[in-house]
Amino acid sequence: MTEIAKYGEFGLIKHLTKDLKTVQPSTKKGIGDDCAVMDFGSKKVLMTTDMLLEGIHFNLEYVPLKHLGYKAAVVNFSDIYAMNGTPTQITVSLGISKRFSVEDIEALYSGIRLACERYNVDLVGGDTCASMTGLTISITCLGTAAAKDIVYRNGAKLNDLICVSGNLGTAYMGLQLLERERLAMSQSTPNTPSTPNTPIAAFEGREYLLERQLKPEARRDILESLRKVGVKPTAMMDVSDGLSSELMHICSQSGVGCCVYEDKLPIDFQAAALAEEMNLNIVTCALNGGEDYELLFTCSLDDYEKLIPVEDLYIIGHITKPEYGCNLIGRNGEEITLKAQGWNAFD
Amino acid sequence: MTEIAKYGEFGLIKHLTKDLKTVQPSTKKGIGDDCAVMDFGSKKVLMTTDMLLEGIHFNLEYVPLKHLGYKAAVVNFSDIYAMNGTPTQITVSLGISKRFSVEDIEALYSGIRLACERYNVDLVGGDTCASMTGLTISITCLGTAAAKDIVYRNGAKLNDLICVSGNLGTAYMGLQLLERERLAMSQSTPNTPSTPNTPIAAFEGREYLLERQLKPEARRDILESLRKVGVKPTAMMDVSDGLSSELMHICSQSGVGCCVYEDKLPIDFQAAALAEEMNLNIVTCALNGGEDYELLFTCSLDDYEKLIPVEDLYIIGHITKPEYGCNLIGRNGEEITLKAQGWNAFD
Repeated sequence: MTEIAKYGEFGLIKHLTKDLKTVQPSTKKGIGDDCAVMDFGSKKVLMTTDMLLEGIHFNLEYVPLKHLGYKAAVVNFSDIYAMNGTPTQITVSLGISKRFSVEDIEALYSGIRLACERYNVDLVGGDTCASMTGLTISITCLGTAAAKDIVYRNGAKLNDLICVSGNLGTAYMGLQLLERERLAMSQSTPNTPSTPNTPIAAFEGREYLLERQLKPEARRDILESLRKVGVKPTAMMDVSDGLSSELMHICSQSGVGCCVYEDKLPIDFQAAALAEEMNLNIVTCALNGGEDYELLFTCSLDDYEKLIPVEDLYIIGHITKPEYGCNLIGRNGEEITLKAQGWNAFD
Repeated sequence: MTEIAKYGEFGLIKHLTKDLKTVQPSTKKGIGDDCAVMDFGSKKVLMTTDMLLEGIHFNLEYVPLKHLGYKAAVVNFSDIYAMNGTPTQITVSLGISKRFSVEDIEALYSGIRLACERYNVDLVGGDTCASMTGLTISITCLGTAAAKDIVYRNGAKLNDLICVSGNLGTAYMGLQLLERERLAMSQSTPNTPSTPNTPIAAFEGREYLLERQLKPEARRDILESLRKVGVKPTAMMDVSDGLSSELMHICSQSGVGCCVYEDKLPIDFQAAALAEEMNLNIVTCALNGGEDYELLFTCSLDDYEKLIPVEDLYIIGHITKPEYGCNLIGRNGEEITLKAQGWNAFD
């Protein structure tokens, strides 16, 4: 018998789906991108799904249920935007153990509904069932796009610019902050009166880190900006597993290599400060942290001038020949080969 | 705080979604039927989702993983057929704990893929992640239908015939058989040599009951037959929670009552024999057993003649005025009010 850890998440999916064929004329793109693409008539239909499991993807000791619902919906919207589409409908399946009350599930749903309202998405169905253990959330999202607008992962060309929105590693630092406080709380004996260093005080001035972890947003604003300046990406993904992992997906699917520069990576000041305090390398966090839900895309070098006025967007490198591989150029000019650490909870 | 058991599954969904509005022009039908209905162009798109949790929906002590995968896919197809549509694509999300091997997940996937092949459905995406506890399967299915062909739950009219395919309560009796053997196995001490009454012997001649529980099929053949004879149902559902529960859904959504006859309910001989052996009332099993995945529909009384040549289809009653409620007429003419026992694992 083979342990699943041997394959890891990506390996297992690849292994399970390696000779999968599609037969429906409406299926334009199956497994292997942020979304599947279907053609049911005038517009293309995008489909994506995400599952969140208690103890793996979230810890209810510090994640409020409303935030969890919001995030569970938004990460799906982010996948639709990452194809340059517009999310339109979701279905929500919940597995709920007895320790949750109706009010708990209402809070979860209120977060999902808030996300739907903000992003103009309809909640059109789902399944709610009892669970023996903990909370399970599975959301599937549909979206639409004109065929000419869809951006896949496999379109990056030699010399294309590599761009990323927002900043990287911040959601990961938010998680470190939450984890540190959780440990501090669990180590203080129950009978000790609360000290001045309560969790709330520890979070002061660091609300942005928490927000990035607990309540991420999908970057539809970046797509709107790109449309305004007339830039269509050649390849695109959202950064859910970490920049390294996503860059390697784009490069392997496009048959190219890449070169990104350490000093170009957008890093938030608070995130960097906390990383120093916690003795972490913020660049490693930016490369492998995950859950930022920023947009990573490539576009033609000819679009360089058009990109300059776009706010909150950073050019971090360029596409190379495949022989070059995927490399980071450090601050002192050293070349470091990127590794897809990503997320392997099977280990 | 309110215990979830107070609401039950249907109550909880209703409570959570009671004032939910849709905003997308492409959303034609949201929550409340077997599928959501979207309009993306020439054809309508149907969407449904189901979640299966270990210990709640299946017991791996007697459910082979390949069968489980097959069933998980087929129950979604059944929801699409229950709208008179054709399933076209699925996404599969899995939560997998460490006790599963790659071979286990291959077996599960092989069942899903077999179902996809048999029903011409494309597997177009999904999510695979580690789980702290047990196996979680969440499948979402898309399908298509011409607008004029879609059958909702709310179209039943006074005097319409009520029809059901196949037989009822058989999947439930299959489950009873499996449970009985599981208990017998667990009670025999590990050191006792196997007796002549091995599980395999106990299942002999009862393979059909097991098949109905472990490897159900979706009744697309019934829809094909109805198309051939030119009958379009006025309301339709698949029987997943039990006949009583489904009849009450159709009646409440259509604003009608119904009358079904005990002696018209299609009961399998093996199922009836096992029920007698186990001291169970087979009619109660047929009404409340669930998991039969047969089609329940209403159609105009004018279609009566056309229905006669359709194989494996049974007229079990008719639609009444709403004041009459939902009633079963017993073998001695007694009137019994139907109750939706359904499935309430929150209790």
